[in-house]
Amino acid sequence: MLDHKLQEKSKSSHCSVIEGKPEVWKVEPSTTAKNCKNFIRDIVDNLDLKPNPEKPVIALSIVSDGDPTVYGNLKPSEETIQAVINIIEEGCCNGYAPSVGYENAREAVSEYLSHDGVDVSPRDVILCSGCSSSIEHCITALADGSKNHNILIPRPGFPIYRTLAESIGVSVRYYNLLPENNWEVDLLHLESQIDQNTSAIVLNNPSNPCGSVFSEEHLQDILEIAYRRRVPVIADEIYEQLVFPGEKFVSAASLNSHVPILVCGGLAKRFLVPGWRLGWIVVHDEVGAFEHIRKALVCLSQRTIGSNTLIQGALPGILRNTPQNFHDELIETLLRNAQVSYEGLQQAKGLSPFMPQGTMYMIVEIQMRKFPMFQSGLEFAQKMMEEESVFCLPGEANVENRKREEHSAKKTTGFCESTVKDSKMLIYNCFAIPGFMRIVLTIPEDLLREACVRIAEFCNRHYAN
Amino acid sequence: MLDHKLQEKSKSSHCSVIEGKPEVWKVEPSTTAKNCKNFIRDIVDNLDLKPNPEKPVIALSIVSDGDPTVYGNLKPSEETIQAVINIIEEGCCNGYAPSVGYENAREAVSEYLSHDGVDVSPRDVILCSGCSSSIEHCITALADGSKNHNILIPRPGFPIYRTLAESIGVSVRYYNLLPENNWEVDLLHLESQIDQNTSAIVLNNPSNPCGSVFSEEHLQDILEIAYRRRVPVIADEIYEQLVFPGEKFVSAASLNSHVPILVCGGLAKRFLVPGWRLGWIVVHDEVGAFEHIRKALVCLSQRTIGSNTLIQGALPGILRNTPQNFHDELIETLLRNAQVSYEGLQQAKGLSPFMPQGTMYMIVEIQMRKFPMFQSGLEFAQKMMEEESVFCLPGEANVENRKREEHSAKKTTGFCESTVKDSKMLIYNCFAIPGFMRIVLTIPEDLLREACVRIAEFCNRHYAN
Repeated sequence: MLDHKLQEKSKSSHCSVIEGKPEVWKVEPSTTAKNCKNFIRDIVDNLDLKPNPEKPVIALSIVSDGDPTVYGNLKPSEETIQAVINIIEEGCCNGYAPSVGYENAREAVSEYLSHDGVDVSPRDVILCSGCSSSIEHCITALADGSKNHNILIPRPGFPIYRTLAESIGVSVRYYNLLPENNWEVDLLHLESQIDQNTSAIVLNNPSNPCGSVFSEEHLQDILEIAYRRRVPVIADEIYEQLVFPGEKFVSAASLNSHVPILVCGGLAKRFLVPGWRLGWIVVHDEVGAFEHIRKALVCLSQRTIGSNTLIQGALPGILRNTPQNFHDELIETLLRNAQVSYEGLQQAKGLSPFMPQGTMYMIVEIQMRKFPMFQSGLEFAQKMMEEESVFCLPGEANVENRKREEHSAKKTTGFCESTVKDSKMLIYNCFAIPGFMRIVLTIPEDLLREACVRIAEFCNRHYAN
Repeated sequence: MLDHKLQEKSKSSHCSVIEGKPEVWKVEPSTTAKNCKNFIRDIVDNLDLKPNPEKPVIALSIVSDGDPTVYGNLKPSEETIQAVINIIEEGCCNGYAPSVGYENAREAVSEYLSHDGVDVSPRDVILCSGCSSSIEHCITALADGSKNHNILIPRPGFPIYRTLAESIGVSVRYYNLLPENNWEVDLLHLESQIDQNTSAIVLNNPSNPCGSVFSEEHLQDILEIAYRRRVPVIADEIYEQLVFPGEKFVSAASLNSHVPILVCGGLAKRFLVPGWRLGWIVVHDEVGAFEHIRKALVCLSQRTIGSNTLIQGALPGILRNTPQNFHDELIETLLRNAQVSYEGLQQAKGLSPFMPQGTMYMIVEIQMRKFPMFQSGLEFAQKMMEEESVFCLPGEANVENRKREEHSAKKTTGFCESTVKDSKMLIYNCFAIPGFMRIVLTIPEDLLREACVRIAEFCNRHYAN
């Protein structure tokens, strides 16, 4: 019966129906779907990664988002597990929660985050399906693709901000971080990137991939710019409290800056359960600027009705009962691994590791001039995999995506300037920083030691004097 | 220090900074956020609901999405609970899953759905954070707000389709369901609503709020139109298998229609765990039309990285081990409650209940001419709450949102024609059908009986001969 209808002309604009020929029905994706790119996945899925068959693979990349659980050496606390089991057995939390989350779960978050001058009320908290979802809602609420809005994001930085923004037609502008200043924000550059259409500055502190932890004073300087230029802040604080001894995590929300701030966080990193998808947004709005944004975030949360209710139900138990020594041990492990990597990689000619101040990552500069056989950090990483079966996520990838660097490089100091001078372009994906790579600090120490040895052998073999 | 900067002029287009006056910083939400409306929440949150203090409240609405777990009488199976406990105790599933879901979870879904002529491969399955998220991804992948696309959605129907579409700038067009034909689709009307910019037809079978179950023949007729007009189908089958004895659930994917179909489903309803947020999309694409859409859906899933991994890990156990008698007992309960309500409401003058063929709902027509004191089903529901402490979700609400009915009513038969003649407009939210209300069949039987008695008393008191 269907075949009799084949002759009828009935063509919808987004389908290509070729008349008179055997019909081809191709449905084209929407602009949003076409613009939706996951830059890390793009690299990993499209790379031709051939490990050395004689050496077991050590992935220092941990596809895709720094998953601390992959090797099984880092596990959530007993209290975290027990909190979820209790909730399942109680049978209380199988139905729909309010789209912003259960009241008692929001209370627990407000209590957890209220310290050091931060005062959070449960009504400021919106629970989301993971911190990515928190960031998605914040960007979607603040930035308008149809009005040519842009958001400012850090370089180097985690690529999800770009993925989320560009897929809804919002452009991104990078502001530089300064390697010589512990990857602090280049304040002049940050301010130079703001224009009439800038609808948010995304801060990531502590930072992926840099492992940097901003001082109160530095945060104050950033927020002063945000205030002066009236640009709201999205503070991605998913690595909150993951800081090494001697450093102090300061939330952007603690500073009385008069800047309206959306703080994003969640259980993923500090509680070692990224798959559980429990994220939050906390609305900080001393000046009353976010009255409409608050409502907008609630509306956006109703589109897909939030996060898993078992984890929401367990959240008070998880946040209140996880003992301090669990957190301390995690920090100890990360710090030890950072030290191991830092020392190990100093044995590698042509690499400059940056000792992190926190998080689960270390960023490493590849002195590309000393490796003239490699066109990019990507090629470097690829070849290292081939020879040593060690894979690190390079700072850039997908050379076809190159774009001319548009900002005025002269204003900036540090690596970005020289990079721009050297190559006349920067490559805009992965962490958006060529000639660097990121390694993860969450894998077992013995593997990390072995990986550093192999990396050093690789570098020392290819290093050109 | 900040105050010294106050004089500087620095105004971003989306902030209103009033110069020379004490400054007001108001951040305006994006168009997407402004367009994001949850119509049921709007009703429930904005209604001035004052129950009769002398009667305990019975909510036959179950805010907002037909949550079967609210009264504690319907619980997930032991096997479902045990599957999750096992996974937590194993400690295997705390990290990030692939954004489309664990391979073994997708395998379990493909196995679960492969019957009655449907053949699903794991690579056709994408897991999402609840079925709302599945539908969101499908609409976002297919429909393009920037190209004036529209999607067709059922009237009456669940309002999430409209919420998701309009927030991304995609308009909706309603196609009528015919009450006199067990709420089958008005095929002529459906086809008349298709134009060059129609990028999807959303089917909801079994249907919320109608409780209807489409026959194979009827589905075939619908898909024939979709094929002839080359419009892909989004089949919301979240109520799959929730059909009463004598009825048969037929998936749109089983019909060899040559129409590319995205089937959305999940654990929420049949497994009684809506809060767990485990939904899926299954890509059915006999004709190869969805090559790009498949990729687009994968990309969209990477924006927020899918669904909770504990539930994903438990999914094989849940789908394989939940015994048939669990499903049978749920159906028995729903059927008994449907019969109780049907009989009970026939005692109410001026109401016409429709006996459902499945799902968790019954739709009831209010013969509004017999209740001239009420301007709308909304007023009817509000007054019933006030006098009898029983709340049913009305078919329409928010009279300010009225719009002129634009489709050609002459082509349609049944209630829609007369409604249009009577009132000259239809009201476009909630279930988009004035003069009706929905009751849920998941509450305990004794409460349902009591509710029906009160509804009947209310109607008989206000009925005008």
